Amino acid sequence: MPQHPLGKLLQPASIAVVGASNNPRSSGSQFTSALIEYGYKGRIFPINPKSDRILDMPAYPRVSAVPEPVDYVISAIPAAGVLDLMEDCAQKGVKLIHLFTARFGETGRKDAADLERRVLEVARQGNVRIIGPNCMGLYVPRQGIAFSDALPKAFGNVGLISQSGQMAEEITRYGAHRGVFFSKAISYGNALDLNECDFLEFLTEDEETKVILMYMEGIRDGKRFPGLLKAAAAKKPVVVLKGGRGNSGRRAAASHTASLAGSQKVLTSVLEQAGAALAGTAEELIDLAAIFLLAPPITGYGVAVAGGGGGASVLSADECEESGLSVVPLPDDIRATLKENGSAIWDWVNNPVDMSIRDSEGFTPGVMLELMDQNPAYDLLIAIMSDPHHERQRDTTPDQILEQFHLDKLGKKPLLAVVANRPLGGPDYNHWAWKIMCELRTKLLDASIPFFPSMTRAATAARKAADYYLKRGREA
Amino acid sequence: MPQHPLGKLLQPASIAVVGASNNPRSSGSQFTSALIEYGYKGRIFPINPKSDRILDMPAYPRVSAVPEPVDYVISAIPAAGVLDLMEDCAQKGVKLIHLFTARFGETGRKDAADLERRVLEVARQGNVRIIGPNCMGLYVPRQGIAFSDALPKAFGNVGLISQSGQMAEEITRYGAHRGVFFSKAISYGNALDLNECDFLEFLTEDEETKVILMYMEGIRDGKRFPGLLKAAAAKKPVVVLKGGRGNSGRRAAASHTASLAGSQKVLTSVLEQAGAALAGTAEELIDLAAIFLLAPPITGYGVAVAGGGGGASVLSADECEESGLSVVPLPDDIRATLKENGSAIWDWVNNPVDMSIRDSEGFTPGVMLELMDQNPAYDLLIAIMSDPHHERQRDTTPDQILEQFHLDKLGKKPLLAVVANRPLGGPDYNHWAWKIMCELRTKLLDASIPFFPSMTRAATAARKAADYYLKRGREA
Repeated sequence: MPQHPLGKLLQPASIAVVGASNNPRSSGSQFTSALIEYGYKGRIFPINPKSDRILDMPAYPRVSAVPEPVDYVISAIPAAGVLDLMEDCAQKGVKLIHLFTARFGETGRKDAADLERRVLEVARQGNVRIIGPNCMGLYVPRQGIAFSDALPKAFGNVGLISQSGQMAEEITRYGAHRGVFFSKAISYGNALDLNECDFLEFLTEDEETKVILMYMEGIRDGKRFPGLLKAAAAKKPVVVLKGGRGNSGRRAAASHTASLAGSQKVLTSVLEQAGAALAGTAEELIDLAAIFLLAPPITGYGVAVAGGGGGASVLSADECEESGLSVVPLPDDIRATLKENGSAIWDWVNNPVDMSIRDSEGFTPGVMLELMDQNPAYDLLIAIMSDPHHERQRDTTPDQILEQFHLDKLGKKPLLAVVANRPLGGPDYNHWAWKIMCELRTKLLDASIPFFPSMTRAATAARKAADYYLKRGREA
Repeated sequence: MPQHPLGKLLQPASIAVVGASNNPRSSGSQFTSALIEYGYKGRIFPINPKSDRILDMPAYPRVSAVPEPVDYVISAIPAAGVLDLMEDCAQKGVKLIHLFTARFGETGRKDAADLERRVLEVARQGNVRIIGPNCMGLYVPRQGIAFSDALPKAFGNVGLISQSGQMAEEITRYGAHRGVFFSKAISYGNALDLNECDFLEFLTEDEETKVILMYMEGIRDGKRFPGLLKAAAAKKPVVVLKGGRGNSGRRAAASHTASLAGSQKVLTSVLEQAGAALAGTAEELIDLAAIFLLAPPITGYGVAVAGGGGGASVLSADECEESGLSVVPLPDDIRATLKENGSAIWDWVNNPVDMSIRDSEGFTPGVMLELMDQNPAYDLLIAIMSDPHHERQRDTTPDQILEQFHLDKLGKKPLLAVVANRPLGGPDYNHWAWKIMCELRTKLLDASIPFFPSMTRAATAARKAADYYLKRGREA
């Protein structure tokens, strides 16, 4: 299969940063520093008519003055200079430019929108493709391309297409804590030239990308998008978060990325037909990324829950059911096994397994999870891993918590963990359980078990993942 | 007004713990130790026929052998001994007994349900009131009464009525991190005698209680409950979380507290008519407790949002709107003020205030919050306080973050904060920003500003609080 044309464009051998400077607070300086810090292997050319040395590298007054080929340009100068820059890039034979430069169509002002149109005309005439304007551009950690020093240095297999640079940063930063690392992230702002369709088509073909996430405010190419989304979702999970769903969000989207946010109803129907998952918040987008990336395919709605006790068990049943999962009662064959094994509570215990009902010290959630993992009544398992909180639990190790769940004996069914995340603050923000829970999460990620801060979030992600895999299965 | 009869019963001058022992792992020992550790000022009498000294205190073989009056008894013995104990308590003149003892009606077994009924008969004959069985009983931190060493020692003004002991512990523990401390919490399990209605009536009159929280699985007295709930909500905010909403939750509730969970539709209508707030999860119950306790009354739906940037702003608009708030566009008079003050973005900036749109370093979220705080178009303010994440922000102090929001110049409208809570784990669970954010939360609590881990949770709590105050206002 021939490589997608963006494939080559997004692997530049050299990058010029226009507006680079020695002032560490300038955006041009921050783009340049990030390339150095993240270990970009290609050539970096700072461009600034007022300096000939920037960050210990030779600087040039304009792109066309660089004595070597320039594959990719980052523009961090004000909007007024972009027309000239575009002509210069065309002359130099630059193939792709990222316009971090903003204050175009998104301002709602006629002169800015006119300028934007002229920039596009010059770029088209000169065969220069544009990412942006008004965006953060590329994050390709494997190649050492990053747009900010806050992004994870580790790389992974999730691709992100984000109209917002802030969201690209938030999703990649917060994703890292959930085991979600990225192959490529593209922040594309006003989508003057290259748009969501181009990037989606590229990530669909990209072999380093196993899951695709999208944050969109508007759809620039409503004709291409449904077909491309369907093709993408047939190949790998796609999760879409849409900004600008209501009146006030649409107003905000217009002044953020000059997007005409279309009807939410139309988008929902496009996503449904394509089989892509719809997220309502950034938190949910990351939940879905984690489940698609880390858990094996979930191919049914029957859920087994163990680990909580008392009211938490009752509520976990409600929350699973309200999220669209089926909390299947304990089947007779499991009860028979429990009875045979001498359990005094074989007729009482159920699913969710309420751990406040026990007949011996040895009755752990793992005992029940093993039985349910093997039973055809269940499609997935959810383990509630509570934080230790009694003084006598102070020396608990993460391994002791995990041992209760018999992880080494499970494996037939996808397993999710619920690990509460207390918003520490106030009198005991330094609580001793915090370190134990952080280490527990680390161990879960090592075992490729996605964790969620609440049952509702775990169950909602599981239901949407099952929707995706079941639809893909039916249509394969 | 005469004191509610429970008022005196819940202030016992002496407590006997039946089943106390020198084995620190026994429940009887843990109840006794908790009383000592939390500084209970009354007399404590360990009861155990096999010891005459327990935890350095004289022990007695039975309650009636105690040479002084016994106001309150905690039973931590197996169910088989409870009939005898009840007769002994009646003989001694005990007024109130807490049956931690379980394995009664909740087992679904006929003999256990029969025993439960006989226990009630003996108690009624002997004028002993019962909390439970199958529950954790009382937590009255001001009096040093606690049922576990995991409960906060600080006391406050929230009252909790919880059918589940595990939920009572979780809500009081997690509430503490959000500034929510308790006057009284009562875990009442199977509600054989005293039930939700008795406790609700008591907390409605209790002057130490400003907000009432309830976790219920069933309603024992469906005739009294609607009227009592209405009377309670007319006096102070009441938040109800119901376990057993769906089929699987009802099944779980039956084996947890022998509750016959009624129709969710009927409950919703009772709550609506009473004006109580309905929470769907434990997290939301605590969100609502925090907003009712810490924020001033919210008396409208017009929300002003500032502090986020880019996509986060767009999504915050959607999330507020979907939660039922009204994201009012920036009024003309605020635009006029901005223009007069020389703002270059007076025609562009809007609500939510997208902080990626700025015209100077001095343009902070506080500038806009001040204007919106003073403007009649808005009923409440939400400040998005992002976590520092760039290396150059490493030395940020919580005060520097707060200064951006001009807290000292606000005060006309209720103010909520959104402070993201990263589930640390994985490669950088020890991230330097964590301490800053914990200290920020502490400072917010000191200033009585409730914080929420996401915009959706803040907005949902705000909408439900406004529903409550508006209904109460109409009916006053």
